[in-house]
Amino acid sequence: MRTRAAVALAPGKPLTVMEVNLADPKEGEVLVEIKATGICHTDEFTLSGADPEGLFPAILGHEGAGVVIACGPGVKSLKPGDHVIPLYTPECRECPSCLSQKTNLCTAIRSTQGQGLLPDGTTRFSMLDGTPIHHYMGCSTFANHTVVPEIALAKVRDDAPFDKICYIGCGVTTGIGAVLNTAKVEIGAKAVVFGLGGIGLNVIQGLRMAGADMIIGVDLNNDKKEWGEKFGMTHFVNPKEIEGSVVQHIVDLTKTPFDQIGGADYSFDCTGNVKVMRDALECTHRGWGVSVVIGVAPAGAEIQTRPFQLVTGRVWKGTAFGGARGRTDVPKIVDWYMDGKIEIDSMITHILPLEDINKGFDLMHEGKSIRSVVVF
Amino acid sequence: MRTRAAVALAPGKPLTVMEVNLADPKEGEVLVEIKATGICHTDEFTLSGADPEGLFPAILGHEGAGVVIACGPGVKSLKPGDHVIPLYTPECRECPSCLSQKTNLCTAIRSTQGQGLLPDGTTRFSMLDGTPIHHYMGCSTFANHTVVPEIALAKVRDDAPFDKICYIGCGVTTGIGAVLNTAKVEIGAKAVVFGLGGIGLNVIQGLRMAGADMIIGVDLNNDKKEWGEKFGMTHFVNPKEIEGSVVQHIVDLTKTPFDQIGGADYSFDCTGNVKVMRDALECTHRGWGVSVVIGVAPAGAEIQTRPFQLVTGRVWKGTAFGGARGRTDVPKIVDWYMDGKIEIDSMITHILPLEDINKGFDLMHEGKSIRSVVVF
Repeated sequence: MRTRAAVALAPGKPLTVMEVNLADPKEGEVLVEIKATGICHTDEFTLSGADPEGLFPAILGHEGAGVVIACGPGVKSLKPGDHVIPLYTPECRECPSCLSQKTNLCTAIRSTQGQGLLPDGTTRFSMLDGTPIHHYMGCSTFANHTVVPEIALAKVRDDAPFDKICYIGCGVTTGIGAVLNTAKVEIGAKAVVFGLGGIGLNVIQGLRMAGADMIIGVDLNNDKKEWGEKFGMTHFVNPKEIEGSVVQHIVDLTKTPFDQIGGADYSFDCTGNVKVMRDALECTHRGWGVSVVIGVAPAGAEIQTRPFQLVTGRVWKGTAFGGARGRTDVPKIVDWYMDGKIEIDSMITHILPLEDINKGFDLMHEGKSIRSVVVF
Repeated sequence: MRTRAAVALAPGKPLTVMEVNLADPKEGEVLVEIKATGICHTDEFTLSGADPEGLFPAILGHEGAGVVIACGPGVKSLKPGDHVIPLYTPECRECPSCLSQKTNLCTAIRSTQGQGLLPDGTTRFSMLDGTPIHHYMGCSTFANHTVVPEIALAKVRDDAPFDKICYIGCGVTTGIGAVLNTAKVEIGAKAVVFGLGGIGLNVIQGLRMAGADMIIGVDLNNDKKEWGEKFGMTHFVNPKEIEGSVVQHIVDLTKTPFDQIGGADYSFDCTGNVKVMRDALECTHRGWGVSVVIGVAPAGAEIQTRPFQLVTGRVWKGTAFGGARGRTDVPKIVDWYMDGKIEIDSMITHILPLEDINKGFDLMHEGKSIRSVVVF
């Protein structure tokens, strides 16, 4: 069949909207009509050429929602008409990682996914002249139709709006999951979030869900104060507007008459900046502070600290897709949205047709959007 | 009163055995007769001058065991004749850290301890000419008598031999505790220990207690193979004798037919070398590997890695005194020794009189001892 897609022909160039060929789903694969897709920083990272593993030409996009059109042989858990969210972190429930019960990082199809291919080592997308087009993160949601392995599709309820729940395919789950699955924040905690973009705001609402007492947002842009407060932030810090270091500022802010040591119980980096990651670790509380790296750093960048920070009880960890097991957890998060436990609508600041997808990247660069969503 | 002590008069010089003055215990303090004391790398670190917080003159030593001789006013939990182990990490059970139930790093007397003073801001030790002598890590066990706050003494059973259980005051508890309290290793785990000295061997026996399946020891000295095996090590790696990196070697060693990703479930750095700390993190399993820093790094040294290591599920943490709450946990570890659950005797390779304490440091430098113990 043919479908319309925004194709990344080369790094550093805008996407090109065009007709492409899409082959039928093979064994264990599913044809999905994408109804909506968010534009995430990770797409931008790859499109810019900064991602050393980026492949071209490719159909980017990994934050989508849609409807099953057809299933390849052997598909058991889905049928045409099911509403689904594609998962860049699949959940096969059979590999050593899934069975470990310690991680969400399913490895069933990792090697082919990293090569921009489906599990059999080929692509389903091609140019009209036959040139193969790479898949991206196993999803390729910047296309009206895509083919995705069954194990990389979360079945969700039919009454949830595609142009909102697509965001659960990455940003919402990553932010909320980092709090609930990775940090396991408890009621009454003090937490700091560095970077109040599309991930950071979801970390904030995750902290609100978890019952944190103090939710400190840190951003260089004062416009983010209002955004943070909308989702539960209790304190805002602009590092450019304080005296001294942000670490000392947060340590002081978290002191109490009883606890004169100070420091956050939990911190989250949503910037991808390795210097910020260090601050995020070092502003946590001696003895038990946990710092979670969420942001993706530039190629080759390294984090650094004195080991004394760890020996005195701080823990440095990270999260991918918020530690969520996609097929199990994503449907629950969709329920939370439909039940009003979490907010999404106001974060979707721009809705665009596919033709205007490059405008979504412009809005991101200009810091004007929290999330732009393309609807088909 | 007067007592005999080995005094560190200046950095980089041998200790001087001499008579010193010891003042009576004040409010909340206890006079202890030290019966035996181990010589630990941390003493050497300070004596060498490499410790930027080292103070002179001082009476070093923090791995002792002895008998209560007298109690100052207000002491309730101890009486003359009680057998005790001094704790460089006290347990007041009242400060924010003790009450957090998340850390053993009691902060009740931290600031004065760091200044080489008892909690009232003065010393009990002085030269015969009246010059004050600093306390060290709140213990100063290189003296036949010392004064220690009540909250920094673990009361232990009377039938345990001082020249063995003194080692529980630091090395044994640090190594075993890192496994049981900090990493919380579970039955069947695969673990790696970097550095098979006085701490590393205790990590190994902690892993044996925890039921680890694979206990890999890493050391540059082949003589350590026999030592490691004595305490439960199942595999030995000398990085100088393998092809390729130690990280890849351990990843390969831990692969199974089912799990072709490989990597240790847990790793422990007992070297204090920041490059080794990085290897220790990076050889752990994608998705759930936990690496624990135990070794003390040189002043100013920093650990470093790509944040991708954390984002893909590895956790970097550290431990001090094995995460043990001294007054609560040390008596249990003494019981374990007396019940034959852990071994200590063979690790005490040298017994010395106080006059020969500098020989103990020489044996450490020459790599000839696991632990030297001074008996009074």
